Amino acid sequence: MKLVRFIYAKQEKWGVLSGNNINIIDGNVYNNVEVSDKSVSVDEVKLLAPCSPSKGVCIGLNYYDHAREMNLKLPDEPLIFLKPSSSLAHPGDSIEYPAISQNLHFEAELAIVIKKQAKNISAHQAYDYILGYTCANDVTARDLQMKDGQWTRGKSFDTFMPVGPWLETDIDPHKLNIKLYLNNTVLQSSNTSNLIFKVPELVEFVTQVMTLYPGDVILTGTPAGVGPMMVGDKVVVELEGIGRLENTIVNEKLGR
Amino acid sequence: MKLVRFIYAKQEKWGVLSGNNINIIDGNVYNNVEVSDKSVSVDEVKLLAPCSPSKGVCIGLNYYDHAREMNLKLPDEPLIFLKPSSSLAHPGDSIEYPAISQNLHFEAELAIVIKKQAKNISAHQAYDYILGYTCANDVTARDLQMKDGQWTRGKSFDTFMPVGPWLETDIDPHKLNIKLYLNNTVLQSSNTSNLIFKVPELVEFVTQVMTLYPGDVILTGTPAGVGPMMVGDKVVVELEGIGRLENTIVNEKLGR
Repeated sequence: MKLVRFIYAKQEKWGVLSGNNINIIDGNVYNNVEVSDKSVSVDEVKLLAPCSPSKGVCIGLNYYDHAREMNLKLPDEPLIFLKPSSSLAHPGDSIEYPAISQNLHFEAELAIVIKKQAKNISAHQAYDYILGYTCANDVTARDLQMKDGQWTRGKSFDTFMPVGPWLETDIDPHKLNIKLYLNNTVLQSSNTSNLIFKVPELVEFVTQVMTLYPGDVILTGTPAGVGPMMVGDKVVVELEGIGRLENTIVNEKLGR
Repeated sequence: MKLVRFIYAKQEKWGVLSGNNINIIDGNVYNNVEVSDKSVSVDEVKLLAPCSPSKGVCIGLNYYDHAREMNLKLPDEPLIFLKPSSSLAHPGDSIEYPAISQNLHFEAELAIVIKKQAKNISAHQAYDYILGYTCANDVTARDLQMKDGQWTRGKSFDTFMPVGPWLETDIDPHKLNIKLYLNNTVLQSSNTSNLIFKVPELVEFVTQVMTLYPGDVILTGTPAGVGPMMVGDKVVVELEGIGRLENTIVNEKLGR
């Protein structure tokens, strides 16, 4: 099932997507998905990120191909960092190229959206706490990330966490082709089978540290091939069986 | 004026503290502080952190005395990292010693609480966006911080961001003695005049990157003398003219 969050007639709604049709949901998507008899075409709505995270928890080096490419030792446990809720961007939104960076990078990622409050969840319970999966772009000001050593500033600008276009609730998250297109050229291409730490292990690891709330998101890491984007570029993260997350880069000051 | 957030008769309220008396506020403390004719004694309430942050933005090395002690070069700009909202703890709350750490440290800090949404705010506008100042403890699992290199995990456990006991709205934040007591022994003692980057510069620097929301908190860095805490310890952050933030360390698994 594909769960979509959107604006229609100035109201925020959730729905179930089938082809181009959205069946509108009554009530809270985190508890029961009750489909109403109302529907709308996906072409008539403004899509929103399919979650309202209190935080994005991101995983560093987590693809075998990326580790090989960088000639890095495989990590013995996940490395985490945070993106603030203020960095969330919606499908189709602009990503703002910060005036203080000269090296803005894309990172295509599989994102996990949390269904219910989670603390100290073991790997074998993890799937009970997941609402679904979607695409994310871990946008990074690489120069600021490297200058600071700590990754926070380079990863936390407003618009640096695009998520969407919708959630897929029934899919094996470890068998998906993942691709990044920059202006229609494929620059990252891998499969989530290359994840070093799998989805259940990530939920266990993160919730050993911090409580996750409904709508929180875990960005699972990026495969080989990260690289720069320029103002005017169109960037697409595509996950097989889920969809395509499209965003355009604009100048922060000019808004275009 | 001292603004206090608390639970009384199972309801969350804000008030103005005078001596032991709290005058209860009607409405939204982020807009207008309208004092009602109702009051209650501070001894009858459960104090809450005087903010509901969407994020804590923390500043790394930011005291001259700490830089000298560590023989570190002075930074040319602030270094930021994040604590998630899930790490917030209230005055009097327990700080949980994580089962996976063997080296839990205190860090006494001056905290800034944001009054209204702030993005790209210049230093000379900064005070218009500040609601007040309070005490915070940037609790850190030092072993995990050092192992990971990235500071997120070691800084982000639940209960690792105690804030309080209340806000002081009318005070010069750069002239305050700051002390940390562990079981009544002073282990950190400095003055906020030693801050390398001052409050207005921090607001400018952070809001150049990310939007701050009402109730968001900036932890301004810790002075010399950080050190370990053990289960059973009582830890107090004291800021002159503001107050004392007291917490006790408990075993995460035992809750005591």
